[in-house]
Amino acid sequence: MSERSYFDWNATAPLRPQARRAAEAALSLAGNPSSVHAEGRAARRVVEDARLQVAALVGAPASNVVFTSSGTEANILALSPAWQTAADKRPCNRLLISAVEHSSVRAGGRFAREAVAEIPVDAAGRVNLTALEALAKSGRSLVSLMLANNETGVIQPVAEAAEIIHAAGGLLHVDAVQAVGRIPCDITALGADLLTLSAHKIGGLKGTGALVRASEDTHLADPLIRGGGQERGLRAGTENVAGIAAFGAAAATAREEGEAEAKRMHALRDQLEAGLRSIAPRTVIFGLGAERLPNTTLFSLEGMKAETAVIAFDLEGIAVSSGAACSSGKVQPSHVLAAMGVSPELLRGAVRLSLGCDTTESDLERLLNAWRKLATALSKGRRGIAA
Amino acid sequence: MSERSYFDWNATAPLRPQARRAAEAALSLAGNPSSVHAEGRAARRVVEDARLQVAALVGAPASNVVFTSSGTEANILALSPAWQTAADKRPCNRLLISAVEHSSVRAGGRFAREAVAEIPVDAAGRVNLTALEALAKSGRSLVSLMLANNETGVIQPVAEAAEIIHAAGGLLHVDAVQAVGRIPCDITALGADLLTLSAHKIGGLKGTGALVRASEDTHLADPLIRGGGQERGLRAGTENVAGIAAFGAAAATAREEGEAEAKRMHALRDQLEAGLRSIAPRTVIFGLGAERLPNTTLFSLEGMKAETAVIAFDLEGIAVSSGAACSSGKVQPSHVLAAMGVSPELLRGAVRLSLGCDTTESDLERLLNAWRKLATALSKGRRGIAA
Repeated sequence: MSERSYFDWNATAPLRPQARRAAEAALSLAGNPSSVHAEGRAARRVVEDARLQVAALVGAPASNVVFTSSGTEANILALSPAWQTAADKRPCNRLLISAVEHSSVRAGGRFAREAVAEIPVDAAGRVNLTALEALAKSGRSLVSLMLANNETGVIQPVAEAAEIIHAAGGLLHVDAVQAVGRIPCDITALGADLLTLSAHKIGGLKGTGALVRASEDTHLADPLIRGGGQERGLRAGTENVAGIAAFGAAAATAREEGEAEAKRMHALRDQLEAGLRSIAPRTVIFGLGAERLPNTTLFSLEGMKAETAVIAFDLEGIAVSSGAACSSGKVQPSHVLAAMGVSPELLRGAVRLSLGCDTTESDLERLLNAWRKLATALSKGRRGIAA
Repeated sequence: MSERSYFDWNATAPLRPQARRAAEAALSLAGNPSSVHAEGRAARRVVEDARLQVAALVGAPASNVVFTSSGTEANILALSPAWQTAADKRPCNRLLISAVEHSSVRAGGRFAREAVAEIPVDAAGRVNLTALEALAKSGRSLVSLMLANNETGVIQPVAEAAEIIHAAGGLLHVDAVQAVGRIPCDITALGADLLTLSAHKIGGLKGTGALVRASEDTHLADPLIRGGGQERGLRAGTENVAGIAAFGAAAATAREEGEAEAKRMHALRDQLEAGLRSIAPRTVIFGLGAERLPNTTLFSLEGMKAETAVIAFDLEGIAVSSGAACSSGKVQPSHVLAAMGVSPELLRGAVRLSLGCDTTESDLERLLNAWRKLATALSKGRRGIAA
């Protein structure tokens, strides 16, 4: 049994061995992929091979993959009013997002604040398609929906939303950062025009992401990082060759092993949730009624404070999270749970457990032992207050 | 003698061994630096240690360093009208750039095209300070000057320009990507308000850069990549931990060894230039009259075509470049040499040789042997045409 148990795969996944090997090999490549000499061509080859691997993971042509420095950068790049298709050159006059999107989508990219509208979600955090349809009909919209929520793991009805959006003449951007490698994520089947990926969530390196276009006729007039011809003019700056190489290897491995891994994680996760509730029957698991990622559990218990619980688990050798890691330091109440109508009392106790391909039964055992201690202490505390 | 000789250090430098060790160690860090558990804190420590090392290289406080994904991204982040100082909250109404800036600066960042004005340069490529003064007086300007030119190595009179700019109430951004580690680059001595750095030019990894502020009172209202609290709100997205670790180690090594390396490179470069001209006395070396980086030679010869020369050198096992690598593929005439008033005939033959800490006398020998063959062939070609 290893010293620690890592239950924070949605924040970032450990590097896959295949990705490590690819990154290490790339460290020895001296060349700039834009250089025409042998050293440059060798670096270019690594970038283009990785592009094929990442494209294959989501069923897109390689030439439609734009490498970025993160899922966040890909989201900001995607959220521009200036996307044009072969059929429609009009700018998008509004951005529609669900109420449970990642903070990088909530920031609105390059849309003016007043051009952004939020679509409500149901109690499980699924976007309200009737509200989406009504909003999508007014003008040309870019709609941004996450495929799976980073906090709850709840899966959005993206393909259904795509039909509504396209019927109304809009475009769909899908943030698939948490979903890819865990559930099927074919860009065509999803009906997405644009798809955001992040390398480090599938066992690549932190510092690499991608924006994938479904069609090469989808054109962006105003790239975010300009002033160089890299990434077909869509993203200037010398490529992160090692990060891209690792992304490619991680994508290829996720494509081969993802389905089997997901099945195994699903079984472990169900076992984990049964354990949590058998120890403390009042445990609430969020999004239970909805289809969820196979690896994610967001739970709470009355009287629990998430920050305290995260530290308690950490002291027991277990890494867990109180919602999204991205907001750095400051603990803020989850906008996701708030949008789902969760009570403030439960909301402030929400702890996320996210599993990965290395998670074992021993990890579960350690986690449930720690939970027993914590739940007992909480129950004593409650009785103390009641007495 | 190694199989190949690399003379393209201005395009990208091979990874320093110290940087490789730092990157490899970081590959094993599973955590997200924003996570509060032990794994997250370990990743955070690596990022903050590297921040100290990068800051020390340019004499800034660590808290003023913002890590980006490239020098290009740092330049675009810098070129915003929305920089405010404690004393002056007005937006900058124009961007002044020299005629020899990098393409990422020429793209103008987030200034409207009509707000960007170009300052002419002299025959050596140095910015005309009189013209700068006249332009800087009209309104509040952000001025962007590179410390050393990527093609010629010519060093700009940045400290003198800073006095002029600050007297006129403007702000100075300095693109120090090619200069840092090769010549002294103290942010205070330069008088820069903002400074751009790139990791891979000093032996770090491709895919990491930084924007450094001289004062923490210099505040940016509109970050480029928003939607997360990372980098003190100035740059959202999970940090490239391995790239940042390598950047730190490369910066620390450059700080320790840079001066001695520069001295050695300077001697080799002088020897190289003497060799080029002794083989072909009509060889023109650009920027000869000006102070230049110790490692860069841009040269041409009538009748030479740069693309052909680059391929000829490559076949002889030597990596050289025809100007900037960043513009990817397409060979375009150098705007730097055009601004210096170089004739089209010489301009299209310009080949850049850039040296680094690994360059040896044997590399020089190989290069001069190849040059002898190439210059002889050119001279025969010319005689053939004349006959």
